[in-house]
Amino acid sequence: MAAEVGLYEAMSTLRAVRRLRSETIPDDVLQRILQAGAWAPSGGNVQPWRVVVAKDPQIRSQLGELYAPEWAKYRSGAWKNVERLTGEARAGQERMLRAADHLGEHFGSAPVILVFCFNPTTMAITDSDLPRPSVVGGGSVYPAVQNVMLACRAEGIGCTLTTLLCFQEDAVRELLAIPDPWYTCAFMPIGYPELRGHGPISRRPVEKLAYLDRWQGKF
Amino acid sequence: MAAEVGLYEAMSTLRAVRRLRSETIPDDVLQRILQAGAWAPSGGNVQPWRVVVAKDPQIRSQLGELYAPEWAKYRSGAWKNVERLTGEARAGQERMLRAADHLGEHFGSAPVILVFCFNPTTMAITDSDLPRPSVVGGGSVYPAVQNVMLACRAEGIGCTLTTLLCFQEDAVRELLAIPDPWYTCAFMPIGYPELRGHGPISRRPVEKLAYLDRWQGKF
Repeated sequence: MAAEVGLYEAMSTLRAVRRLRSETIPDDVLQRILQAGAWAPSGGNVQPWRVVVAKDPQIRSQLGELYAPEWAKYRSGAWKNVERLTGEARAGQERMLRAADHLGEHFGSAPVILVFCFNPTTMAITDSDLPRPSVVGGGSVYPAVQNVMLACRAEGIGCTLTTLLCFQEDAVRELLAIPDPWYTCAFMPIGYPELRGHGPISRRPVEKLAYLDRWQGKF
Repeated sequence: MAAEVGLYEAMSTLRAVRRLRSETIPDDVLQRILQAGAWAPSGGNVQPWRVVVAKDPQIRSQLGELYAPEWAKYRSGAWKNVERLTGEARAGQERMLRAADHLGEHFGSAPVILVFCFNPTTMAITDSDLPRPSVVGGGSVYPAVQNVMLACRAEGIGCTLTTLLCFQEDAVRELLAIPDPWYTCAFMPIGYPELRGHGPISRRPVEKLAYLDRWQGKF
């Protein structure tokens, strides 16, 4: 049974899956995926997040209509960056962008779209007064989002995280009747993969991410 | 072997562990914990985070000296909130706060303190212009932080996440020689648990976190 996937196996094969079948996700599978999110830690155990599980075809279609132009704006820059690459790096990026273009056209056809919301008034955002972008509020929501993605992997469900729809936050809040003071922080179309789905991922090695004792200290 | 822990078992028993033994963490264990972080997804696969692995006793001690007064400032409000509770809820919070007070005094004695840093200039922060606190930058760092915590659980290592030291970001950056444009977003003392360590956690049920199709829609 899918739930027996090992922790490291799930993490090391969790790739973005952007081509999704429209097949329904069974309720028990969805329940386990959301339970994984509920288990995540948050500052003061406040759990200052909620998730709208969009299954209604009309709502998903409207989310898709909001997503398509945002992806269209983003994609031109992304494709231009690819032109600077060569060889296998370029081929890999092109495959990714073709899949992302596919998602841009089919966002609303995913059987479920998860819309994660957060309430900043119940968060202790310790970096809000610093003279640089604040990220700490995310510390109480993205651990839950990551748990949900890992659970998707365990259940054989493809998923990918996007925040592009924050550019359409007003429209999304109106569509889903999200009240003050709740806002959007993550959008995740999920579904069974069209192709092979999960598998190898490409990441920096630990030695390039971790330092011993001080910046640049060789780990 | 610890790495065989199942995904859901790890998630459902990942509790904050604030009483840590000073015993050294073997290098191979630390390597697996950091590898889990490296596997995490990030926007555009940029991985705009690094982690300083503080093992040097003097550096840890100085981090502890920076943490103690921040915890002291925070704890009085937290203990006051407990006075409003009764029964088992109060007893649970008191146990948590006693452990947090212990951590406040022994922060620098954890055998390893992980200091997560991020580079906002390489992030696409899609909510930076919205009239509410921005969290999206966190979407490219806290999935890695969550992977690290889950890996700690898998390895039998206790951990807890704090962002209180963001209040001392300048001092931390100087201590660890963190250059522009890198900033701090998560601090994690880790070590083998003094007491039982991981176990049951207390969270809202899925029905209180998930809505179907629209806000408040019964899932």
